[in-house]
Amino acid sequence: MKFIFPFLGKTREEYLDAGIRDYTKRLSRFVQVEIMVLKSRSPKSIPDMVFKHQEAELLLDKINSPSYVIAFDTKGQEVDSPGLARLVEDWEQNGLQTIYFLIGGHLGLHEDILKKADLVLSLSQLTFTHEMSRLLLMEQMYRAWTIKTGHKYHN
Amino acid sequence: MKFIFPFLGKTREEYLDAGIRDYTKRLSRFVQVEIMVLKSRSPKSIPDMVFKHQEAELLLDKINSPSYVIAFDTKGQEVDSPGLARLVEDWEQNGLQTIYFLIGGHLGLHEDILKKADLVLSLSQLTFTHEMSRLLLMEQMYRAWTIKTGHKYHN
Repeated sequence: MKFIFPFLGKTREEYLDAGIRDYTKRLSRFVQVEIMVLKSRSPKSIPDMVFKHQEAELLLDKINSPSYVIAFDTKGQEVDSPGLARLVEDWEQNGLQTIYFLIGGHLGLHEDILKKADLVLSLSQLTFTHEMSRLLLMEQMYRAWTIKTGHKYHN
Repeated sequence: MKFIFPFLGKTREEYLDAGIRDYTKRLSRFVQVEIMVLKSRSPKSIPDMVFKHQEAELLLDKINSPSYVIAFDTKGQEVDSPGLARLVEDWEQNGLQTIYFLIGGHLGLHEDILKKADLVLSLSQLTFTHEMSRLLLMEQMYRAWTIKTGHKYHN
């Protein structure tokens, strides 16, 4: 099983980048991990909706089928951490090979992606910066594996 | 209005500490902020429930009444970021002077605190490390103020 995380642009906030690198390394003990940094153009000169759509195309362009796609949106389905661990178990039992985890840019994900995704999850009803959401997601996927495997992990 | 954040022990993860410091500084533009670092003893030699109770006493000991106390727990009430901004507005309109924001240690908050708190909120149904929750909380309180005041903040 392989987890692919396509990021829209580099993580510019250094402290978040440090955390993301830490959890990427930890998560790699359990599953093959690929962080894909996509070059997203400057949003300054175009309307928000156009930019959001361009970002959606950038993401969709990177997804090789067949694969399982999970999109993150505050309005998505909420799970607790043990529930996320059960999802990982299900993916494994269903023989899923490649799973994409999609997080939007500063405008969030375009409706097209939410419609095309196999599953739309929510990390929280609260809105976090998209770079912070990357850290939360990496930590949660690591936590899910520690729960699933009974690996000790301090909170 | 003053926001007090009593932390159980220092933030040991350096990258999280950097983020917490950043958002503490940002939040201070809107409201008086105090981070209180409480010395929590080593949990190694005592049972979890005893340790959790000791942490609860440490926290409750620091709270000067009259004040408004908000405890954080995954089972608490969920709000979205605009909802949190409305809460801040309510606190201001109700003339609240001092608000305590309580986050548990690695075991979470003791039942005693959840019972005594004026409000129990949840940052997410997902469980994050308690140090990560500190960062999320500081960011959300800053975000709430930017929403309330119409201050620009990139996501």
